[in-house]
Amino acid sequence: MQQTTHQLNIRTSNRGLKEITAEVVDWLSKHSVKTGLLTLFCRHTSASLLIQENADPTVRADLEAYFERIAPEAPGRYLHDDEGPDDMPSHLRTALTQTHLSIPVISGKMALGTWQGIYLFEHRARPHTREIVLHLIGD
Amino acid sequence: MQQTTHQLNIRTSNRGLKEITAEVVDWLSKHSVKTGLLTLFCRHTSASLLIQENADPTVRADLEAYFERIAPEAPGRYLHDDEGPDDMPSHLRTALTQTHLSIPVISGKMALGTWQGIYLFEHRARPHTREIVLHLIGD
Amino acid sequence: MQQTTHQLNIRTSNRGLKEITAEVVDWLSKHSVKTGLLTLFCRHTSASLLIQENADPTVRADLEAYFERIAPEAPGRYLHDDEGPDDMPSHLRTALTQTHLSIPVISGKMALGTWQGIYLFEHRARPHTREIVLHLIGD
Repeated sequence: MQQTTHQLNIRTSNRGLKEITAEVVDWLSKHSVKTGLLTLFCRHTSASLLIQENADPTVRADLEAYFERIAPEAPGRYLHDDEGPDDMPSHLRTALTQTHLSIPVISGKMALGTWQGIYLFEHRARPHTREIVLHLIGD
Repeated sequence: MQQTTHQLNIRTSNRGLKEITAEVVDWLSKHSVKTGLLTLFCRHTSASLLIQENADPTVRADLEAYFERIAPEAPGRYLHDDEGPDDMPSHLRTALTQTHLSIPVISGKMALGTWQGIYLFEHRARPHTREIVLHLIGD
Repeated sequence: MQQTTHQLNIRTSNRGLKEITAEVVDWLSKHSVKTGLLTLFCRHTSASLLIQENADPTVRADLEAYFERIAPEAPGRYLHDDEGPDDMPSHLRTALTQTHLSIPVISGKMALGTWQGIYLFEHRARPHTREIVLHLIGD
């Protein structure tokens, strides 16, 4: 049994889902693990992780519009507003989605379904560099 | 330390929560792992996983009604509508719940609380066969 | 490779987020694991886990207010009401957040970001003792 860790630094440009599947596949392919568990951990509270459909890009547009609707910028509603109107909605969106994902590895590949991609969900309106820690255990 | 993986294929009939605790317990009982970590991974973006109360079935009815209310079918609202009116709400419901669950194993059993059951949450209106990958590591 | 498990028993006083980072750090520091994966599992369906901002306490107040708004007590709306008006909203809030968290361990410490804290999210209106199972694997 072996373990390894790594950090992805992902540059975002705006609110929304950014696919990072290729970056994770690339890192996994450098290791000889055939069976294992891969965990992604997002080191932020205003960005999160999701597994979502990787085919039709309108799914991502609808997801972004949905989260803007259920966790809107609302000046005056939130007590926490000194980091800008998009900050508290970012914490709400993070609470409703995932800070970590664990994905089994089988025959050297993540056990993702055909239509599943891994996404970093940026919740802030401006560009950020987001740190995603990867942990792999297996043999 | 040992690892093993398996795939459950679960037939659903309609939207809602279907308990799969017995299937997972049955698979776990075939292994000699006393202490470990069991991970379930759902290979879909229109079905998900939840741990919920396993006692009163009205909890499941209320959960289903709640998700229909907060992520409704809404013709004209979603850009992604070519797979039917229930498809985009399914992606939203998946984003709000879990694609994977990890549960510690202690003394050979999952560390579930008394009232916790493991559920597959089907979000599509028609029957589907859903693939749940299980990964167990421990000794 | 080694494994160990533990149970934290956390006393809550009311609805809202209670930080448990120090309890987890304290337990982790008793072990010699340098690289690994730490999993927290909440053994309840009316309390859950979240990683959230640990700096400004108004974030927690806004989070609590938000979940009261999107999953309100609503006499007559829920079929499941025999455990009190706050019980079904508790199950909904649990479904929208996390029953488990997995956090990579690097150089003997959890890979939390600077502003991340681990929180037990109590959803019931009265005090409870909540059981959080910890599982650590690594070397």
